[in-house]
Amino acid sequence: MERRQRETSLDDDEPAMVHVDASNESASYNQPPPDRDPEDDETVLDNTPPIFSKYGDFHTIDWQRDLARDRMRHKLISGKRREWPIGLFESAWDSGAGWLCVLLVGLAAGATAGTIDIAARWMSDLKNGICADRFWLDREHCCWSSNSTIYKDFDCPAWTTWPEMFNIYTKSPFYYTVDFLFYVGWAMLMAGVAVLLVKTFAPYACGSGIPEVKCILSGFVIRGYLGKWTFIIKSVSLILVTSAGLSLGKEGPMVHLACCIGNIFSYLFPKYGMNEAKKREILSASAAAGVSVAFGAPIGGVMFSLEEASYYFPLKTMWRSFFCALVAGIILRIVNPFGSDQTSLFHVDYMMKWTFFELIPFAMLGIWGGILGSIFIYLNLRWSRFRKTNPLIGRNHINEVLLVTLFTSVISYFNPYMRKNGSSLITQLFDRCGPEDFMSDLCDYQNKTASNIKVDDNYHTGSFGTGVQTAVWQLIIALIFKMVFTVFTFGIKIPCGLFIPSLAMGAISGRLLGLLMEAVTKTIQIPDGHTEWWSCQIGKDCVMPGLYAMVGAAAVLGGVTRMTVSLVVIMFELTGSLEFIVPTMVAVMFAKWVGDATHKQGVYEAHIELNGYPFLDNKGEYPYSIVASQVMRPHKGDNELCVITQDGMTLGDMEALLRETDFNGYPVVVSRSSMYLVGFCTRRDLQLALHSARKTQPYVVTASVVYFTTNVPDSTVVGGPAPLRLRKLVDLAPMTITDQMPMETVIDMFRKLGLRQVLVTKSGKALGIITKKDMLEFMRHGENYPGISNPNFQ
Amino acid sequence: MERRQRETSLDDDEPAMVHVDASNESASYNQPPPDRDPEDDETVLDNTPPIFSKYGDFHTIDWQRDLARDRMRHKLISGKRREWPIGLFESAWDSGAGWLCVLLVGLAAGATAGTIDIAARWMSDLKNGICADRFWLDREHCCWSSNSTIYKDFDCPAWTTWPEMFNIYTKSPFYYTVDFLFYVGWAMLMAGVAVLLVKTFAPYACGSGIPEVKCILSGFVIRGYLGKWTFIIKSVSLILVTSAGLSLGKEGPMVHLACCIGNIFSYLFPKYGMNEAKKREILSASAAAGVSVAFGAPIGGVMFSLEEASYYFPLKTMWRSFFCALVAGIILRIVNPFGSDQTSLFHVDYMMKWTFFELIPFAMLGIWGGILGSIFIYLNLRWSRFRKTNPLIGRNHINEVLLVTLFTSVISYFNPYMRKNGSSLITQLFDRCGPEDFMSDLCDYQNKTASNIKVDDNYHTGSFGTGVQTAVWQLIIALIFKMVFTVFTFGIKIPCGLFIPSLAMGAISGRLLGLLMEAVTKTIQIPDGHTEWWSCQIGKDCVMPGLYAMVGAAAVLGGVTRMTVSLVVIMFELTGSLEFIVPTMVAVMFAKWVGDATHKQGVYEAHIELNGYPFLDNKGEYPYSIVASQVMRPHKGDNELCVITQDGMTLGDMEALLRETDFNGYPVVVSRSSMYLVGFCTRRDLQLALHSARKTQPYVVTASVVYFTTNVPDSTVVGGPAPLRLRKLVDLAPMTITDQMPMETVIDMFRKLGLRQVLVTKSGKALGIITKKDMLEFMRHGENYPGISNPNFQ
Repeated sequence: MERRQRETSLDDDEPAMVHVDASNESASYNQPPPDRDPEDDETVLDNTPPIFSKYGDFHTIDWQRDLARDRMRHKLISGKRREWPIGLFESAWDSGAGWLCVLLVGLAAGATAGTIDIAARWMSDLKNGICADRFWLDREHCCWSSNSTIYKDFDCPAWTTWPEMFNIYTKSPFYYTVDFLFYVGWAMLMAGVAVLLVKTFAPYACGSGIPEVKCILSGFVIRGYLGKWTFIIKSVSLILVTSAGLSLGKEGPMVHLACCIGNIFSYLFPKYGMNEAKKREILSASAAAGVSVAFGAPIGGVMFSLEEASYYFPLKTMWRSFFCALVAGIILRIVNPFGSDQTSLFHVDYMMKWTFFELIPFAMLGIWGGILGSIFIYLNLRWSRFRKTNPLIGRNHINEVLLVTLFTSVISYFNPYMRKNGSSLITQLFDRCGPEDFMSDLCDYQNKTASNIKVDDNYHTGSFGTGVQTAVWQLIIALIFKMVFTVFTFGIKIPCGLFIPSLAMGAISGRLLGLLMEAVTKTIQIPDGHTEWWSCQIGKDCVMPGLYAMVGAAAVLGGVTRMTVSLVVIMFELTGSLEFIVPTMVAVMFAKWVGDATHKQGVYEAHIELNGYPFLDNKGEYPYSIVASQVMRPHKGDNELCVITQDGMTLGDMEALLRETDFNGYPVVVSRSSMYLVGFCTRRDLQLALHSARKTQPYVVTASVVYFTTNVPDSTVVGGPAPLRLRKLVDLAPMTITDQMPMETVIDMFRKLGLRQVLVTKSGKALGIITKKDMLEFMRHGENYPGISNPNFQ
Repeated sequence: MERRQRETSLDDDEPAMVHVDASNESASYNQPPPDRDPEDDETVLDNTPPIFSKYGDFHTIDWQRDLARDRMRHKLISGKRREWPIGLFESAWDSGAGWLCVLLVGLAAGATAGTIDIAARWMSDLKNGICADRFWLDREHCCWSSNSTIYKDFDCPAWTTWPEMFNIYTKSPFYYTVDFLFYVGWAMLMAGVAVLLVKTFAPYACGSGIPEVKCILSGFVIRGYLGKWTFIIKSVSLILVTSAGLSLGKEGPMVHLACCIGNIFSYLFPKYGMNEAKKREILSASAAAGVSVAFGAPIGGVMFSLEEASYYFPLKTMWRSFFCALVAGIILRIVNPFGSDQTSLFHVDYMMKWTFFELIPFAMLGIWGGILGSIFIYLNLRWSRFRKTNPLIGRNHINEVLLVTLFTSVISYFNPYMRKNGSSLITQLFDRCGPEDFMSDLCDYQNKTASNIKVDDNYHTGSFGTGVQTAVWQLIIALIFKMVFTVFTFGIKIPCGLFIPSLAMGAISGRLLGLLMEAVTKTIQIPDGHTEWWSCQIGKDCVMPGLYAMVGAAAVLGGVTRMTVSLVVIMFELTGSLEFIVPTMVAVMFAKWVGDATHKQGVYEAHIELNGYPFLDNKGEYPYSIVASQVMRPHKGDNELCVITQDGMTLGDMEALLRETDFNGYPVVVSRSSMYLVGFCTRRDLQLALHSARKTQPYVVTASVVYFTTNVPDSTVVGGPAPLRLRKLVDLAPMTITDQMPMETVIDMFRKLGLRQVLVTKSGKALGIITKKDMLEFMRHGENYPGISNPNFQ
């Protein structure tokens, strides 16, 4: 966070005018973030026109004000509707703008995803070799174009490996050494280029981006996080790191990229670009499109946006998100990066049914997913904290990436399951053993080797061959190393998603359990064919290891991210069958329960907390019996509340107040003795107004009384210096609560109304203030919150 | 509404203890509903213990208080967790209760839906004949069991029509007369029994129930609306009226039935049964299960619950709703009412693709759907209003039902498409012409008659035969009469849903347009086979009239109900293919736009308004520039705000206030001169407290001062009568806003926080009050609201 803050300027590529909001609101209340440049404020003060201010970087937006502003704008345009033709056109354009914008976002997101997929496929194969005739083809297309029929995962003559390029054809140790060196070399090169790009051009392009997107959607402002440089650099480096074979996925970053697209396009429509709250409607739709293209699951994308990403998600936005996700999905299908007609990342097509008995292993997978997820989050957090505090790593991000890449590529080279890229591994594990898997270890069943090739959909019967044993060991090793690598990879300074590694770990676990189950059922099957409790047809396998892999993948992803509905819907869209929702749902349910019991937060929430973003979680329940007066500031024993009186302070007092305190706003009261609340005034407005008064109104002196009321005494009559009238600065409708309001209701108000602060009153008198930061602090500490003097109050 | 109110007692079957809420809150603020019995309050006052009060019938619940109460309960149980084993068990039971409850609801909803489907099928066929050997089989199963291979819609020997029962085998006019009389007679009998059942036992069982369910979920209390009698009577009469062949569907009532199940099961779990706000979580899940079983679309059900039905829908509830909908769907599949393995109501399986050019007719269908929907709503509303005001119909509900049934059955008898029940008609229209449709008029293509039977999936090529012309005319007639009948049917005193009639009207329109498109493309197809702009394979039809029917169905349903995402998701789950979402989405989008432009409200909202339910719509946007002081009561020129002072009123004053005013609550202020707001006290609490004080505290006399403060002067010292201490009655944390708060923010607060009233203050002084009723009044009248003296205020 500290580093990022400094690096922002590099990426702050949005046009300056965009930040100038046409209203008087400013940044979040109370203390500015500790790492904020003090000169920042000054610059703004000098360069922007006095009335217009913008949200500061790393500040929270005020939803209610932004939306109110949009309603005013809308009213203005609606009023013009009768002015034919310009008014009518403007009105039509205004109402169509949202749809047009999400359409463009959908188109762009689909095209981007398609391009990245194609490029990553080609570059990924580059580690192994190149298509001799047509270098621009990846291995699969290369082999297709050469018309040689091959089995899965085997090389065709047209595909030239690197040793072969150097005329080494015999599979000698030398051949393998060259192959190995090329493999590792390419990986290091790709990862190195990627980290250099990120470090040089767009530091925000690293990571999965989902925690930040969540924060941005909840109303946080991170300048340049969704800018065009971030988009370009993240796209390019995403291709590079995916191809480098690191243990990361491109699905999470795809959501970030889609949001970048949404942000960029929103500037075409001032309605959205100029209004942070409205812009978040477009961003919600973009997040849906991101998941839609990542998994080929439009409905899952909308559910993801609803469940995970979005904060303010009215039904109109949901409908648009759906449209956006659908357009993106359709475009991806037209681009057709996988060369098949499937939009979904791993299309599976099982013919068999599962039995109710199998819900037990599915639930076990869920429990395992929850545990594995929690362990992963715990280790990853430990390492991330160590990285943050350790100056050695802090200074050597590039070396860290290269080191991780070196280890990953060296070890992955020797394990066929780790060497594959994540999504093909998952596809293989999800799949049933078909006739085309004839050379695969995983499908080495004995009756197959007897008749060699037996083309039958359900031919993987019989007992395991030795190949399966090899495969099991390799899978176990792959699982362990995947886990270790992912812990170290998630958080390094390159784009890295978590979906694919999590799914891969889950798929491996699931496939292993599936094989075990298969072995067990074979052993206990009653020889004479009466299999009452096991309702299978005799001679056919009822256990589908592929289904177990799928369920396991969902379980581990659920354990890591704590997604629920969206995860099940995505899995449903992958399989397209209602039949397999139940196993997935059972596993995800158990993963969520066990995960929540072992590590309270999901990985995104944990990283949000780690980075200290002010994110007010909208899921948890907080059964405290604490009232507002115990949480508000000033706490008991602190100084009294810092207020402005409506007509009793001089300009000098005011300037002293601004100098001595650093609160971002002040309640305005009738008088310091009565403390009856009138309104609220933000620090920035006050600063700008006083500054401009000093400059432009020479008769205003330090002893001038500042009036926030309408009836200002005429100074020529009463004598004394000319008064300063600042009535317009005061927000006369601040959110207020009473001191006895239960904190759950206050939390609800913050969440649902998107507040930045509330003022606490008692019988009309201002008592204190609760800001979003206080809320977060309180929710983190619960009943140990410093302000709570007596926990047994109620 | 007036009638219902009186009839409530019949159906008020819930145990009395259930209504006794363990808190002090009472009913909605200000005037009680005009049609409320005045003696009602008296009864409650006498019979219930003084501290416990319940929500009145037709009153609104207080979400925040109910949820706070649940949090207290939860805290209590969590605290006991360490008391092994009872505390631990209680805690586990408490956290598992929600899941168990929705599981039970899912199971019951699935089973109910299955039973109703099977019974309705059998009884529906009873109008035509009976299975001679096994009377308990419907026609399809009868013919299956007799093993005679038949074509669709043709009778097998085992199936005996009514004339055949009387040994009339020749198809003479006499045969048809007997057949006709039996058809009409059965229909009249079934509808008559249904309306008698409804009228006698459960008046709430009539209608679709969705408008009321929406209101209930938004926090309205309608006693007995979800009771067991309503459930039983609605199930039985639903079977009867569906079988009577009326133009109505059982899908809407299925949602109502599922909610009844939810309500009934929630009483097994006091956590839900005793807390109206928590109960609504279960009801939301139930609504999802209802749609899930109605259409075989679990995700669509959740989306429906989210989009249409629910008000308070946290993510936890969504996850449970999903589970509930899924369980219900699985159970329905196990019951297997349709004898196939499909859970969805109309499973379609198109092999062909649509072209982008076809989006134009799809959009046209959308426009048509919007217009048709608006016309339908307009006519139905006109008729419903007429029915409400006309005493003749008001007294003759039974005759009305019989008359509608008579007309419907007489006319339907002569039209094969109207004679079918709704869902088979829709299935037929959605379907492509396959080899099994050989005798159908709709699939009478000329090349088929040439070679008689040509078994090919795509065999419906060639030009239309005369059969198609007949079919077109019959379909047009069916469309017109469906429309007319549905207008008169929706609203009569029997269970009647709108989904199926709307879908049927849409499917007919769509199929007609599809046939037209087919004819057009055939005419303009270039003879030499170059069909550049029409990317079809030559010799094959590219226009699928079935797809048009599906799109049309979605469009009309969208026009009538104004559903968006949920409708598209339901359609997606029906077809199971992403391919056809785009046409559906385009049509639904246009239907929504055109519908909203021609008739602002959907049919449910219109009926909610017609019945005067206090439903605060959570969708619309209200771009007013009006502030709270213009809406609050007292309006300008009215009497001043009716308040209670915290220590300045005597018991006599208080009683006079209660006698003279009928507000449901009073703000408590410091003194009448200062008006600084202290809290809020409800009428019912005050009434009960004063009543009990008079009874139990003889030293409290009319001149006793009532104190709402902690420091009560000792009467023995200061003299005078003994004071009455009522501090505990005051809610010290009422929701307050300032007079300058924009109304949009106030609307947002009401919607999102589920408020019943807010107090309006200015500089800490109580100025007025805005209740939910005022809000609704304001939203209905907009800027013409009576309180707004100066519309150009801001």
